[in-house]
Amino acid sequence: MDRGRVYLVGAGPGDPSLVTCRGISLIEDADVIVYDRLVSHDLLSRARRDCILIFAGKGMGESKKQEEINQLLYKYASEGKTVVRLKGGDPYVFGRGEEECAYLVEKGICCEVVPGVSSAFAVPAYAGIPVTSRWMSSGVTVLTAVRSTGEVIDLDYVPKKGTLVILMGVHVADRLKEQLLKVRPAGEPVAVIENGTLPGQRVFVSTLEKLDVVVRENKVRAPAIFIVGEVVKLRSALTR
Amino acid sequence: MDRGRVYLVGAGPGDPSLVTCRGISLIEDADVIVYDRLVSHDLLSRARRDCILIFAGKGMGESKKQEEINQLLYKYASEGKTVVRLKGGDPYVFGRGEEECAYLVEKGICCEVVPGVSSAFAVPAYAGIPVTSRWMSSGVTVLTAVRSTGEVIDLDYVPKKGTLVILMGVHVADRLKEQLLKVRPAGEPVAVIENGTLPGQRVFVSTLEKLDVVVRENKVRAPAIFIVGEVVKLRSALTR
Repeated sequence: MDRGRVYLVGAGPGDPSLVTCRGISLIEDADVIVYDRLVSHDLLSRARRDCILIFAGKGMGESKKQEEINQLLYKYASEGKTVVRLKGGDPYVFGRGEEECAYLVEKGICCEVVPGVSSAFAVPAYAGIPVTSRWMSSGVTVLTAVRSTGEVIDLDYVPKKGTLVILMGVHVADRLKEQLLKVRPAGEPVAVIENGTLPGQRVFVSTLEKLDVVVRENKVRAPAIFIVGEVVKLRSALTR
Repeated sequence: MDRGRVYLVGAGPGDPSLVTCRGISLIEDADVIVYDRLVSHDLLSRARRDCILIFAGKGMGESKKQEEINQLLYKYASEGKTVVRLKGGDPYVFGRGEEECAYLVEKGICCEVVPGVSSAFAVPAYAGIPVTSRWMSSGVTVLTAVRSTGEVIDLDYVPKKGTLVILMGVHVADRLKEQLLKVRPAGEPVAVIENGTLPGQRVFVSTLEKLDVVVRENKVRAPAIFIVGEVVKLRSALTR
């Protein structure tokens, strides 16, 4: 029997209209779709009626489950099925797509990545904040707040200048702030964006020294993204 | 007369199938499309027959022309037309979209940004390189090789660790290498990707100390992207 294929597809940042044309076409053709927690129902509704839909959303730190997902993808692909692994944002930007792809390739399964619009850039854009600017920032760094080791941000990954986009930081906002204040000014502008690109999006603008207060006082919940940098100031000029 | 609107649309990294659904729908409806040099002809062919197509590709450093583009967008929008400003990659990632948006908003024109798949992440992905990895890099920094001041990379924007994605560096590869060697090890893996995501894509893997040699010996031409970091090593595990 012919072996199937696995497509690692980026669903984009939330707004379902930001999926790529190639992504939606693969969703419509798939025999099996294994999807994450943040994937829009609108995208799943485009699947074939006989498509097998499998929810694979993970809670925080459940790394055991990754092995189960890998095996699931392998099982269906080895049965000859066309499998779409649908992930929020982009599969290769903190998406663990590289682990799934390496597992499948090692077992002889063809695996193709289909990039998606990354939340790291699109969520700020929807909030009126460009991550780079000729006037203010000639670079952008994207980081997760908590590393796989459990550490809250390694400052060796943080440049002195340029925009920072920090993902998954809501539950560690206080420690994150303490760390960043070692290398960035207290008064540097910060934006906190909850439910970015979605109808319930909320945006709070403040300064780095108040990052944890903003999160706490507004009861910000995950998923949320933090932007640190002068570009936050452009917001008023780019929205009306 | 009602005023029109301007949509700043990201066309994605080159492969036309990576445009977003919202992007293609706006292209199909537009009265006017003002497009850049790297935008695929396949996307332009989806425009209405009576759509006004205007090429606005800029050469290097022609900053005067930006003012003309701003005025062009304003002119058509103020005539009540629906204008799509179509840019390679994402409009807010080194796309100068923020300048166009600020100009239009200041003049009272509604301007909406529609993020695209950024070349900074998708070009490495098509070459089998994830920009982040739980094993190797918990951060990624995207930079232009040459800043608006003419300076070849400001090292304050370069963190000690993590993946670097450097755009528009072909013509300054030697100076770029000299600068990066001040903060990164000579043996750090490097990939040079020319025509990323397109049929003519070429990928060269080496180390930082040979960056300029690789570019010269292979006659690499713009557009090309440089990736610096351990993640380059994952390529062999992620492609077959």
